[in-house]
Amino acid sequence: MNYQSEAEFLKNYDASQFEKPSITSDIIIFSVSSQMGENWRRADKKTFSVLLVKRAEYPQMDKWNLPGGFVGMRETSIDAAHRVLTRETGVTDDIYMEQLYTFDAIDRDPRTRIYAIAYMALVDKDKLHYAEDRTAKWFDIRLDGDRLILTSEDGVRLTESDLAFDHGEIIKMGIDRMRNKVEYTDIVFSMMPDEFTLGELQQVYEAILDKKLLAAAFRRTIASKVIETGNMQTGFGHRPSALFKYRG
Amino acid sequence: MNYQSEAEFLKNYDASQFEKPSITSDIIIFSVSSQMGENWRRADKKTFSVLLVKRAEYPQMDKWNLPGGFVGMRETSIDAAHRVLTRETGVTDDIYMEQLYTFDAIDRDPRTRIYAIAYMALVDKDKLHYAEDRTAKWFDIRLDGDRLILTSEDGVRLTESDLAFDHGEIIKMGIDRMRNKVEYTDIVFSMMPDEFTLGELQQVYEAILDKKLLAAAFRRTIASKVIETGNMQTGFGHRPSALFKYRG
Repeated sequence: MNYQSEAEFLKNYDASQFEKPSITSDIIIFSVSSQMGENWRRADKKTFSVLLVKRAEYPQMDKWNLPGGFVGMRETSIDAAHRVLTRETGVTDDIYMEQLYTFDAIDRDPRTRIYAIAYMALVDKDKLHYAEDRTAKWFDIRLDGDRLILTSEDGVRLTESDLAFDHGEIIKMGIDRMRNKVEYTDIVFSMMPDEFTLGELQQVYEAILDKKLLAAAFRRTIASKVIETGNMQTGFGHRPSALFKYRG
Repeated sequence: MNYQSEAEFLKNYDASQFEKPSITSDIIIFSVSSQMGENWRRADKKTFSVLLVKRAEYPQMDKWNLPGGFVGMRETSIDAAHRVLTRETGVTDDIYMEQLYTFDAIDRDPRTRIYAIAYMALVDKDKLHYAEDRTAKWFDIRLDGDRLILTSEDGVRLTESDLAFDHGEIIKMGIDRMRNKVEYTDIVFSMMPDEFTLGELQQVYEAILDKKLLAAAFRRTIASKVIETGNMQTGFGHRPSALFKYRG
């Protein structure tokens, strides 16, 4: 058919003649958790963690998955991601979020063809106001080679096959993005409390990178990113440590 | 409704009850071009370029856009991107391609809600077998602050408003990704011919980064990535230069 104008073409365009997929926004919400020290002499240990929700409905009922939802026709995928983030955490503002990747393996969801646009959000857990969804849990992340191991504070232990859909693959790509980004950006501070010791900051880097860092080299690298607050962390049965904040 | 099993739930799932968007794969095909020297004493200058196609149909007829196409229900978006790449360049194998970002502003396309999953491919122009689409042209890229200026060999000059949809924004994000990646990966060699001088390689880095580099520092940085082939580049009225290849 030959159209005489853009307007005529658009009037005749019938979007309903095509079979189409659905779209979800799924969010990896990363944060830092404190694991209690083994005894009163040990400070808490900082770990790298992710928020997962146990599915209460079909499909894949009882598996754990990333918080997510279908994207409406009149919202963008990042708006949908913010909507889900608010639903899960109660937080509405000042959250670091970036688009990670779009996952679209043909049979990744048994319902229909569903594209998942994955977002990654970094939050300071202590600033969350929990909202309606109390089936959510924080899991400490360990990636042993290609093997993902997730452990909750109350002892739930998941491997990739306990996760719904391709969410294990999505989380692994998020970890990979974090590992790259902590080296050349300041995004790690989005997960830190307002004040922290350099030891705690190093633990967070070590948890993300899954390797031990030399304290002297680490302190040189981050020296330009932090400033002393003048406050000290006390308690824990060891000598007081200076508290720092992000230079911003 | 309460289902007794995953199978029963899936049997009753009616994907057609939801209004849905369309999806395209759009590809930024980057390469390196040679701009003829101004006179016989000057060697060719290497520039950073992108392949665009002039739209021959509504919507946005006569504007230039990235090669792209709708993704079918039984193919993935990267398969669709490869299909488009082959259509535009004739090349089927050994092409560096990565997913860049999914663009989904609500009104980015006048037809209907269309998500564009943008891919970035890096090709060595000299290895292309041109296929059916001869409305395609290579444009040298210049990004002056936030202002994109594209110039073809035969003198067509485009700014962002000459591009269809949000393709200017997509290209700018691709340039940004390239600038980040050339610093910490080896992807630039996907665009280089098999043999090149270090001067040519430096010109390519300079074209992507849009800044002059100091030759001595540049050579130190890339020394570990290249090896001498033993061949020399002659001609051009200057002294012969050693040819290198990617160490791989």
